[in-house]
Amino acid sequence: MGPGPSDIHPRVLNAIGRGTVGHLDPYYLETMNNLQEMLRKVFKTENELTMAISATGSAGMETTVVNVIEPGDKMLVCINGVFGMRMADVAERAGAEVLTVEKPWGEVFTVEDLQPIIEAEQPKVVGIVMAETSTGACQPLEEISQLVHANQGLLLVDAVTSLGGMNVEVDKWGIDIIYSGSQKCLSCPPGLAPVSFSPAAVEVLNNRKTKVRSWYLDLSMLANYWSEDRVYHHTAPINMTYALYEALRVILEEGLDNCFARHKRNHLALQAGLNALGFEYTADPNNQLPMLNAVKIPEGVDDATIRSGLLNRFGIEIGGGLGAFKGQVWRIGIMGHAARQSNVLTFLAALEQLLAENGYEFSAGCSIAAANSAFAHNE
Amino acid sequence: MGPGPSDIHPRVLNAIGRGTVGHLDPYYLETMNNLQEMLRKVFKTENELTMAISATGSAGMETTVVNVIEPGDKMLVCINGVFGMRMADVAERAGAEVLTVEKPWGEVFTVEDLQPIIEAEQPKVVGIVMAETSTGACQPLEEISQLVHANQGLLLVDAVTSLGGMNVEVDKWGIDIIYSGSQKCLSCPPGLAPVSFSPAAVEVLNNRKTKVRSWYLDLSMLANYWSEDRVYHHTAPINMTYALYEALRVILEEGLDNCFARHKRNHLALQAGLNALGFEYTADPNNQLPMLNAVKIPEGVDDATIRSGLLNRFGIEIGGGLGAFKGQVWRIGIMGHAARQSNVLTFLAALEQLLAENGYEFSAGCSIAAANSAFAHNE
Repeated sequence: MGPGPSDIHPRVLNAIGRGTVGHLDPYYLETMNNLQEMLRKVFKTENELTMAISATGSAGMETTVVNVIEPGDKMLVCINGVFGMRMADVAERAGAEVLTVEKPWGEVFTVEDLQPIIEAEQPKVVGIVMAETSTGACQPLEEISQLVHANQGLLLVDAVTSLGGMNVEVDKWGIDIIYSGSQKCLSCPPGLAPVSFSPAAVEVLNNRKTKVRSWYLDLSMLANYWSEDRVYHHTAPINMTYALYEALRVILEEGLDNCFARHKRNHLALQAGLNALGFEYTADPNNQLPMLNAVKIPEGVDDATIRSGLLNRFGIEIGGGLGAFKGQVWRIGIMGHAARQSNVLTFLAALEQLLAENGYEFSAGCSIAAANSAFAHNE
Repeated sequence: MGPGPSDIHPRVLNAIGRGTVGHLDPYYLETMNNLQEMLRKVFKTENELTMAISATGSAGMETTVVNVIEPGDKMLVCINGVFGMRMADVAERAGAEVLTVEKPWGEVFTVEDLQPIIEAEQPKVVGIVMAETSTGACQPLEEISQLVHANQGLLLVDAVTSLGGMNVEVDKWGIDIIYSGSQKCLSCPPGLAPVSFSPAAVEVLNNRKTKVRSWYLDLSMLANYWSEDRVYHHTAPINMTYALYEALRVILEEGLDNCFARHKRNHLALQAGLNALGFEYTADPNNQLPMLNAVKIPEGVDDATIRSGLLNRFGIEIGGGLGAFKGQVWRIGIMGHAARQSNVLTFLAALEQLLAENGYEFSAGCSIAAANSAFAHNE
């Protein structure tokens, strides 16, 4: 129950250990086709250039940036947490002229925040994080997408933590470039990064004047392997592909809407429990992610004691704070297969026990009662 | 039995499906330490900076190049097959002033080939492929290493196909920078790239004046995660790490020398069988790799017919030719767990059947007889 990797679905752990075939084996090529088709459903897109990059989510970020940016291109990066900061660093290394706009951690960006700089600077790409895993804030995207397009820019979105756990509408919202990771709400081990590019983004890729700075992540070659030509580029991570394939099957069998509702229901119960204990969330309550619950550690409670107690006595991992939030925040994930009633209740019960042992005062059982009540309300 | 991924050891397929823990879980951190220790044994090095990159072997190439090269640095790349060509491309994207020296495919480089250009140009880095997977040629390294060091350069070696299947002496041969892949003689699925850097190479990394062009592959940050500081960089591919961990355990239990001898013994038998059928190898016979057997497809034999027959009727994958060898060469791998007597004999028997059906003339049973004789000779 940390910020990822999440609990892996048993069917996925079973699939990952199947016999490894070659990366040009007809069976594997068919698996790739089916994987792409399922990724399009989860991204809600018709984008042909939809595939999985052979590395983790951060490489998904690098792939998207390094392929659309040529040295000297202007890229605006919106920063309200660790992953926006990372995106600015990645863009700088890709040779972009990086512009940034910042908001306090936990807050999100409005059209008013971005309009002046976008209109003045006309950046080629605007990068923004949909689900900031360092704060739990959920960034609305539709209006910002309109603003970016009105200024002839491309919208590049980090959906590492959101994909599979809440609605991500690539086509309807006009997202041009998006990346995610396998290890959050997709319930798959880390190691693959789903990406998707709109026709407008593909046109930019096709009209590059310089080589992409990364050979490994160069989509002009990767697309030839993922297309019917099947031109060898690198040896694909076969077993990781089996895992993501099965993970997507599991999600689509449940149905995306059911899956999102399950994340929401478990989040509301967890939130009720944490609020009953007096914990405050770090993100603006109007923009709270369901799958990532970042709460301030109350005064007098020792971060390491509670987290190591959860891990060593209960087998429960939660995440500590990142960057500016280090030592001040816990990040509790309800991602994918971890978004289960039994997980929420076990976690709250364990937390109550550890808090009581460490002298934190609260009404015993209050978090379980609140969570159960929330579950009853949101069935 | 293609050029990789190889057959995966059953213990490795079992390990990869174990429960996914967090990338900062104490259990995982200990696994990383043990993995590093085992990698040092397989690389035969004391190098502290020895680790696995979270992507496939080609990303290992990119990692080594992009970290030691700053824009404008001279890098000499030795090209005698596809992977030397790739290295030159990677170096160019990293901003290197790329110099190349070429030999016909299948041949290897001598000190005499390289001395003039190295002495004249004094490149910062000399990149060379130890086991050229496109040709089967095995590049001797010791004398070239002395030449490079006499000219104050760093030697960068591609050991993707050789590591685990033949002797690779990083410290003794004076290799400064080396990379490999998990999916060849280590009998692990593709997805990780072992790398190692000598103290001299680390000094170069520490004295960089510019940021590494790739955020994902930047060793200054990766080393902080693999060191005791455990600074979060990206979410490691946990289950792939389990697999490589177990694969290294399997190899070290067998013993490196036993493992190399097994590769050699099976190679000699395969070679005897293929020679009996009249097949010619593409590489110089004095420098033939044991694990990668590239042979010319005889006139009148159809590439696709035989390869699809092997795959569809016998479940045996072999590789086609790459680049200049496309359609003209087969590449038969005896890598890791695939280097077994039963594999060699089954393959030859299947090949004989398919060749006979397709009108190729040979003395029936000759390849099996030759292979059995070689096995008897080399017990």
